[in-house]
Amino acid sequence: MSRVLVTGASGFVGRHTLAPLRDAGYEVHAVSSRAAPAGGSPATVHWHHADLLAPAAAAELIASVRPSHLLHFAWCTEPGVYWTTLENIAWVQSSLSLLRAFGEAGGRRAVLAGTCAEYAWAPSTHCIEEGDGATPLHPATLYGAAKHGLHVVAEGWARQSGVSLAWGRIFFLYGPHEHPKRLVSAVARALLCGEEAPCSHGRQVRDFLGTPEAGGAFAALLRSEVTGPVNIASGESVSLAEVVETLARTAGRPDLLRLGALPANPSEPQRLTADVRRLREEVGWSHTISLREGLERTVEWWRNTLAEERAETESSR
Amino acid sequence: MSRVLVTGASGFVGRHTLAPLRDAGYEVHAVSSRAAPAGGSPATVHWHHADLLAPAAAAELIASVRPSHLLHFAWCTEPGVYWTTLENIAWVQSSLSLLRAFGEAGGRRAVLAGTCAEYAWAPSTHCIEEGDGATPLHPATLYGAAKHGLHVVAEGWARQSGVSLAWGRIFFLYGPHEHPKRLVSAVARALLCGEEAPCSHGRQVRDFLGTPEAGGAFAALLRSEVTGPVNIASGESVSLAEVVETLARTAGRPDLLRLGALPANPSEPQRLTADVRRLREEVGWSHTISLREGLERTVEWWRNTLAEERAETESSR
Repeated sequence: MSRVLVTGASGFVGRHTLAPLRDAGYEVHAVSSRAAPAGGSPATVHWHHADLLAPAAAAELIASVRPSHLLHFAWCTEPGVYWTTLENIAWVQSSLSLLRAFGEAGGRRAVLAGTCAEYAWAPSTHCIEEGDGATPLHPATLYGAAKHGLHVVAEGWARQSGVSLAWGRIFFLYGPHEHPKRLVSAVARALLCGEEAPCSHGRQVRDFLGTPEAGGAFAALLRSEVTGPVNIASGESVSLAEVVETLARTAGRPDLLRLGALPANPSEPQRLTADVRRLREEVGWSHTISLREGLERTVEWWRNTLAEERAETESSR
Repeated sequence: MSRVLVTGASGFVGRHTLAPLRDAGYEVHAVSSRAAPAGGSPATVHWHHADLLAPAAAAELIASVRPSHLLHFAWCTEPGVYWTTLENIAWVQSSLSLLRAFGEAGGRRAVLAGTCAEYAWAPSTHCIEEGDGATPLHPATLYGAAKHGLHVVAEGWARQSGVSLAWGRIFFLYGPHEHPKRLVSAVARALLCGEEAPCSHGRQVRDFLGTPEAGGAFAALLRSEVTGPVNIASGESVSLAEVVETLARTAGRPDLLRLGALPANPSEPQRLTADVRRLREEVGWSHTISLREGLERTVEWWRNTLAEERAETESSR
């Protein structure tokens, strides 16, 4: 039986890989530095608690689980902080310890989470992983540099150690459990609370994918034999204005949306989209949940979550 | 006063940076995991003993020296081993700890040793660091991948932390103190001992630089304000046959040279040379010791070293 270790397993994407991996027949071991999520995770998942930044934690975890497969999401992800925190350096170091221990314990296949921030961001960038027309890799941030540098070392290690390695570059995500400071969460929460939702002009074009689908894409990538970088994205382009207008319609408060109230970040590209031919044709995965449906589910999740938060606040009075 | 910490300071290149740095007015701190070289190092150099692969060693060293400048050579370098050893992973981790501590302690400028093995090796490759016509970076080995991956992360870190960072890509070196298993050493030693010196066909074209000059080039790079990758090389192309034939003439034993006696490594490029415009025009350094003179000095050094080795063997009888 194949045994997979998922790091960052209580995180935004990691949590959505557990059920598809279990359904695909893996013995699923999930590790998180936080408590295992209450409910929502398949009963057969084996949970481990570890802070992978602690010295020797990665090696001890691998020695205890001895996985044949590895899906590595754990990283610093706090909005506004993760682009620049020096913890990015520590995550490169920890990830290398994890890979090395994984290979030495007989691990066979690893998939790691990369990022669209590894690509050089021109004003209009359609990101292609490999081959003729490949997009140059020139990360502008420490986060992007740390991920890309890790990938470079990991590729050299994998080629030599015989471990099959793929690298899933994540684009723009939305979904339940998103940090409340991020775009979709912040707008959905504000509108559901009857507050104004200030946004930038919204003409930026991106590739958005719901996290339940992103989890499924990573599970499919792990099951495949595809190696190298693979964009994890929907392949569809949408403007931020369309995203927040859909949220506003779903929440029933288009009157509270304030497009243009915030300045746009001048360092951000106008268009940043993903080529998904590798994901679609080589991995054989493509997304099926429309952006509208995904956003509606997300608004519904926030509606329930805010109701629970209010109930908790009231019961604790 | 500027205070420089040189790691790998008893090594093949590092040892040759100490005098030029001292002459340029730096307070020179040298660290090595081996004993400081007996003689040969300027008297004013402060020697430190540390194994930078030990946990916390890098941070402790930086805390004790508090350098404003850093010249980082320490790495695994054992011939036949360094291309593939997993110690390359540990050196990435250690180097990141060193950089992070250096920045946090107020370090201002760092120069690290990279390698021509970071470039994609086509059958004929003239390596150009940057700009139009830049040579792609696709290391084929773990050693090259570890160095290149470290550079990617280090660039992201430097840009953000405000540390000025340059990356010297070393090509082919020769000189005193070279490991006896490497080409120039092995041929010089064999000829001086009156033994046959088997070589491959020798038609491979390379850029060779003597280590005393390489040390001077790194010292000049550190003193400059140039950032990014810089090839450390002579800018002159020579065939391996010309190199070993010069050694044979100098040693007075051309009769013992056996060109074609060994198979050439089929994965090695026919031509691998360095563009040195950045080094020459931006750093302002160019080499002045001809290959013939450098090789003659190297043969002379081996002649003396072998005589000392024989004297030691005889006195210990």
